[in-house]
Amino acid sequence: MALDVNPVLIPQLARTTPSRILFVVMDGLGGCLQPGVPTALERAKHPHLDALATEGALGRYVPIAPGITPGSGPGHFSIFGYDPVALEVGRGVLETLGLGIDVAPGDVTARANFATAGPDGRLTDRRAGRIATEEATPLARALNAAVPKIEDVRIEIHPGLQHRFALVLRGPGLVDAVSDTDPQAEGVAPLAPTAATPAAAKTARVTAAFLEKAYAFLRGQPKANTVLLRGFSGRPAMPTLRERARLTPLAIAAYPAYLGVARLLGMDVAPGVSPKSTVADEVTALERAWAGPHDFFFLHVKGTDSAGEDGDEDRKARVIEEFDRELPRIRALRPDVILVTGDHSTPGPMKAHSFHAVPFLLRGPWVEPDDARTFDERACAGGRFGGWFPALSLFPMAMACAGKLAKYGA
Amino acid sequence: MALDVNPVLIPQLARTTPSRILFVVMDGLGGCLQPGVPTALERAKHPHLDALATEGALGRYVPIAPGITPGSGPGHFSIFGYDPVALEVGRGVLETLGLGIDVAPGDVTARANFATAGPDGRLTDRRAGRIATEEATPLARALNAAVPKIEDVRIEIHPGLQHRFALVLRGPGLVDAVSDTDPQAEGVAPLAPTAATPAAAKTARVTAAFLEKAYAFLRGQPKANTVLLRGFSGRPAMPTLRERARLTPLAIAAYPAYLGVARLLGMDVAPGVSPKSTVADEVTALERAWAGPHDFFFLHVKGTDSAGEDGDEDRKARVIEEFDRELPRIRALRPDVILVTGDHSTPGPMKAHSFHAVPFLLRGPWVEPDDARTFDERACAGGRFGGWFPALSLFPMAMACAGKLAKYGA
Repeated sequence: MALDVNPVLIPQLARTTPSRILFVVMDGLGGCLQPGVPTALERAKHPHLDALATEGALGRYVPIAPGITPGSGPGHFSIFGYDPVALEVGRGVLETLGLGIDVAPGDVTARANFATAGPDGRLTDRRAGRIATEEATPLARALNAAVPKIEDVRIEIHPGLQHRFALVLRGPGLVDAVSDTDPQAEGVAPLAPTAATPAAAKTARVTAAFLEKAYAFLRGQPKANTVLLRGFSGRPAMPTLRERARLTPLAIAAYPAYLGVARLLGMDVAPGVSPKSTVADEVTALERAWAGPHDFFFLHVKGTDSAGEDGDEDRKARVIEEFDRELPRIRALRPDVILVTGDHSTPGPMKAHSFHAVPFLLRGPWVEPDDARTFDERACAGGRFGGWFPALSLFPMAMACAGKLAKYGA
Repeated sequence: MALDVNPVLIPQLARTTPSRILFVVMDGLGGCLQPGVPTALERAKHPHLDALATEGALGRYVPIAPGITPGSGPGHFSIFGYDPVALEVGRGVLETLGLGIDVAPGDVTARANFATAGPDGRLTDRRAGRIATEEATPLARALNAAVPKIEDVRIEIHPGLQHRFALVLRGPGLVDAVSDTDPQAEGVAPLAPTAATPAAAKTARVTAAFLEKAYAFLRGQPKANTVLLRGFSGRPAMPTLRERARLTPLAIAAYPAYLGVARLLGMDVAPGVSPKSTVADEVTALERAWAGPHDFFFLHVKGTDSAGEDGDEDRKARVIEEFDRELPRIRALRPDVILVTGDHSTPGPMKAHSFHAVPFLLRGPWVEPDDARTFDERACAGGRFGGWFPALSLFPMAMACAGKLAKYGA
């Protein structure tokens, strides 16, 4: 594939039709094929996925480029047809949007969290002992009340889960080219925020002033006595799926970062889903939404990735089985096109995201079925779409199979 | 795969680790699969390569783009993750660097060689009867002493093997957009150097003045009575592998052009290797270097290409077998990741470089083994990496398998 044609061709060819597309993203779904070590997909019993695989076609896609391990943000953008390398979307803006907070053009956000430092200022716990949300939230609110503004810049602190929060700076002349203060290690002090370009000098200065006040305010706290910042970022200029693809999209996802991706893409967010939701709860939300105006659905399952990160392939397999049990309810809705995949691989033996190509299954009219009778990495590597399908082509392929892309050229 | 992501992502993600990567490049390794005509890899017995293939995964990579036949320079750059089309590295600069001569920004170099012309000025032998190095070297030195400078431009002549030498121009206002004087045919006179852009006018003028003096100086020589120039080029602005990938790389190669590539990429050059070295000598140099600080090794085997160019598949097979016998010594060093491949294909029946995809074998942690039990073109075309793997992805894939690439985005 030469250049990424999506920004040019999708807006030109997309047309609104009554057909409906469902993207199921099981986070970190893929594994690494190693002799004698079955992957979670190979361990799990998933008869309904296997039936879907029999009707559809399989492949493994490359999230960014071979050898590149994607974070969740880049992984998701690729699936929806946006090149993350061209976009450079920061994690800060994703987290903030994920908390339901709007990020306007010109705002700068950072991922923030409470941490613990010793008397000498060196970090002893980068996550403040994973302080409870109930404890951290009022502290974040009090900190924001104490530091509402620096110069002409409004400071917003939006509490997240446990020790995490989002820092939002709103005011004139802000630029996101500011370095992380999180040193990514304990035993050292937090770093000073520095401007990577002259234009970001004000943002770095305001951030440094905020941190000075925050350190003073938090002094004496047993756990959350300091703050770390990373991923300074502004809202990227990008078309939504409504604009680019003439879709009315809906997201069903429990965790902030994924909702952040969804909002940037112009998706509505289904109500009634929280980090405590089961897959069944998410499918119930899908059923409720099915009568509505949406024609593109993004259903996100988190548990596969968490289990992979913990190196627990059996638990990962159980999450896949949990999804498989709900698949008949999804199929009863008769979506025209279903894509089942992950946003990246998280092989249990690696306990981390990996660069391995990601299994996927596409079912819909005009999909050419292959001979696969099961859905796992091996079947996908040998499937119709091959072992090295470009991620950016998943979205146009799904659109095409749903009859939503007109002919290019007369 | 969208754009070439290496220039953006490798500098961002590369991290130095103790793991060591070995790239074995058997020059022109690939053949052309034709019914009834076994390739050199198919003719050769290579049990140790086959064992490595069993442990690792195979593929065929596309050096530049399908249908494009690469020279050695572009072929090598691709393997190391640099897009040669974006770089436009000239052969002149490669040869000059390969002779151990530094090329600074602003210098212009050309590949040069002595040739024989008749009394009418028309070429009768483009290679001056492959005059012996012992004869050509003092002649080149004398020519340089006679023409040390043109205008404010210093002229340097660096003798190579046989009739070959490198011409280096150093001075202000030089630009490499000058046409070859080698007409690539006998029976015609050498061409005049012409400037392809107005900025190159001075360089063309200086070159023409040099040639006029050189022709006069060489008049009366029995063989080497004229000079041909091609591949005018300056040092390309490019990051080294140290800068781009945080590696400490070492090259083990015998011939100037490959050492030139290696030096441009910031590689150290292993001592004790010359064009007379055997593969065993090169492996000895690798063994000696193994205790040192390097974490990336490039071992170049020349004989496969020379045999392919001569159309001698049996000799090419014997070079492969010669390498195979030394492979256990390499494996005893326990490199973390091994890539075995060529820089392009040189099918014996074509007696030339070709556009055919190049077989490769990757072995390392987190490489997903395929079912291949032998290393040849057919097994590679059906291997894990498929038959059309992008050359620019070989380097990041090797880095990833060695644990040298961090996650992209959180």
